[in-house]
Amino acid sequence: MRNDPDRFGFEIVATDGDARAGVLSTPHGTVETPCFVPLATRGSVKGLLPAEVSGAGYEMVLGNTYHLMLAPGSERIAALGGLHEFMGWDRAIITDSGGFQVFSLAFGSVADEIKGRRGRPPLDGGVLGIDEEGVRFRSYLDGSEQFLSPERSMEVQARLGSDIALVFDECTPFRADYDYTARSTERTDRWLQRCLDWHAEHGPRGQAVFGIVQGGTHEDLRRQSAESVAAAGVDGIAVGGTLGRDKEQMREVVGMTVAMLPASAARHLLGIGEPDDLVAEIGAGVDSFDCAVPTRLGRHGMALAPLPERRFRYDVRKRRNAEEPGPLVSGCPCPACTGFSRAYVHYLSRAEELTGVRLLTMHNLVYSRELVAGAREAIVAGRFASYRDAIMAGAAPWEAASA
Amino acid sequence: MRNDPDRFGFEIVATDGDARAGVLSTPHGTVETPCFVPLATRGSVKGLLPAEVSGAGYEMVLGNTYHLMLAPGSERIAALGGLHEFMGWDRAIITDSGGFQVFSLAFGSVADEIKGRRGRPPLDGGVLGIDEEGVRFRSYLDGSEQFLSPERSMEVQARLGSDIALVFDECTPFRADYDYTARSTERTDRWLQRCLDWHAEHGPRGQAVFGIVQGGTHEDLRRQSAESVAAAGVDGIAVGGTLGRDKEQMREVVGMTVAMLPASAARHLLGIGEPDDLVAEIGAGVDSFDCAVPTRLGRHGMALAPLPERRFRYDVRKRRNAEEPGPLVSGCPCPACTGFSRAYVHYLSRAEELTGVRLLTMHNLVYSRELVAGAREAIVAGRFASYRDAIMAGAAPWEAASA
Repeated sequence: MRNDPDRFGFEIVATDGDARAGVLSTPHGTVETPCFVPLATRGSVKGLLPAEVSGAGYEMVLGNTYHLMLAPGSERIAALGGLHEFMGWDRAIITDSGGFQVFSLAFGSVADEIKGRRGRPPLDGGVLGIDEEGVRFRSYLDGSEQFLSPERSMEVQARLGSDIALVFDECTPFRADYDYTARSTERTDRWLQRCLDWHAEHGPRGQAVFGIVQGGTHEDLRRQSAESVAAAGVDGIAVGGTLGRDKEQMREVVGMTVAMLPASAARHLLGIGEPDDLVAEIGAGVDSFDCAVPTRLGRHGMALAPLPERRFRYDVRKRRNAEEPGPLVSGCPCPACTGFSRAYVHYLSRAEELTGVRLLTMHNLVYSRELVAGAREAIVAGRFASYRDAIMAGAAPWEAASA
Repeated sequence: MRNDPDRFGFEIVATDGDARAGVLSTPHGTVETPCFVPLATRGSVKGLLPAEVSGAGYEMVLGNTYHLMLAPGSERIAALGGLHEFMGWDRAIITDSGGFQVFSLAFGSVADEIKGRRGRPPLDGGVLGIDEEGVRFRSYLDGSEQFLSPERSMEVQARLGSDIALVFDECTPFRADYDYTARSTERTDRWLQRCLDWHAEHGPRGQAVFGIVQGGTHEDLRRQSAESVAAAGVDGIAVGGTLGRDKEQMREVVGMTVAMLPASAARHLLGIGEPDDLVAEIGAGVDSFDCAVPTRLGRHGMALAPLPERRFRYDVRKRRNAEEPGPLVSGCPCPACTGFSRAYVHYLSRAEELTGVRLLTMHNLVYSRELVAGAREAIVAGRFASYRDAIMAGAAPWEAASA
């Protein structure tokens, strides 16, 4: 499969415990796993150029159906040659289906709708109605009424021309109760089939489709969803929905869910990407991750760092960094750490200078990339457990890799 | 002089009419003139890294005494190795003296002070008092009271370690009357001497000092100021203050002022940098320019372009650019034009994505650099007049250069 450029494939090249090292093959090149996927939600990795993202070692980014259908519109992007051409990125793209964004913006109004209580629609964004057909919601841009359904989401993703499309699902939050989650998961399963039906007829050549396992924190619902998705003939499987109240529960939910998936399928964990989560869930057998953390933290003055006691990050804007001539993180190969002092990044971040956002975003992306690249190397070498333990104990990725 | 790295020098290598091609020599390398100097007001060219600025062909940037003394402070920058080291820029730096910023923020209060009328200080920034000693003003950051004088400005610039320091002057606006401008120009002349006295005793090795010619739009005051500056033994001469109500008057004032300057002196025009102004004033004999235009326009969705009828720019955010698959400007060698469509930059700018700011900033800086590099080439080849005419008629710099 890896030799057919028009066809998606996934090959496992090494395992170490539950952890796997593999290669995704897409029409836009291969992607070594485990991998982290930076967000290009609105068609750019915020503040960076494509050459910088690929230069940091990234082989895939994530674009979003929800944002791109609202602006500039999937028709416009298609007319301009598709999302790769539009944003100047010639490597792989995975697109989220819009499900998460539609539902995460205003779950209250979903529950109200389901239960027959109607309130005022939220001022910006928010769900207006959900039924078997799909979801009516307000645009986060101008409040206009919009509609997404399994078919519409797949159509948008087809126009975008992503290498991997995600099926349209309902993303249930932690506060949804068992009954709601059960009914929602069943509907997501029916939507999955509609996505696949639409894609079989209209999907672009070479575009893979990943199913999404829902079911909240409930083992039976997760199992039911996992079995449905696996049986549906998808190209890969993503884990979505709530993963619980804290990291401990997240480890449990991801661990049990991944164990339910066929070993041969590529496994993507949606919306997770803090350093400890990456190494823990790689250990559970996850192959790929996307998350706003590295890029969003960079826009808020935060640097990823080997500091387990401080959630693997620190606030560069704090006064203690004002006079530090050394780099953000000692030994880090990123452009911020090799070219500039922590004092300079501190100053730029406090002054809200754009260059500061850029330096921190690059640092956080390089740091995350080093982390997963080190994990892959350790899996191949059969020493992933010691790598993970070293990271958890506060080693930098490049230190843990040679430990 | 060019062979002594610790010593400033200026050599004219070709002339064509009043236009000159030359080379500035500084402790941080040579600068070919005519040149445009991008602003790094607060220690970064907004949104860019030093390698991109030098990669675009720039050999000098401008930092600002006013902003940098307030944050992070010149002592901090000195402790971190000086401004070059702090911002990671190893080429030449010219620093503005702070005079323009102090006075341009609130001229009304200066006039009130002079005339004995006292009002409320402006909420942010603004002059609190001006006398022979110097200027008290409010910080634009926190409203704290600050003080700048000739000695203090030179001390800050010495700590920053710039290659070219500018003397501390009062920058008179267009609405200042003849009497006020005359008295101000005389005081600026006394301040010039104090700057040079301080610098002779305390200035860092190799740092050049440029005087500033004031005098408003009045020929006799400009002449008096030009003669004082030229006689004072400065390393170069900048033209400051108001240049009049419109471009026509600017051409007159700059033309008459430059004609008053010794031919051997490097001539810098402060705060001017629109494409037509660059070629017109290069034609008048100006060697270097600094201006916020290319970078500021980039942050506001504007692209420089060979469009004389539209002030050499256009608003990329306008709907007419939404579906344009071609570049911002056809033939432009910048990263935005060679890698992305106008439609993409349009979309990013409307969406206020940071990457859009970056692409437009790079385009505008590359465009400005092409413009002055083409002018230099034309001067050396003895065809500057036709180059200027072609630019004014709407040729792109790379077209005019080969015309």
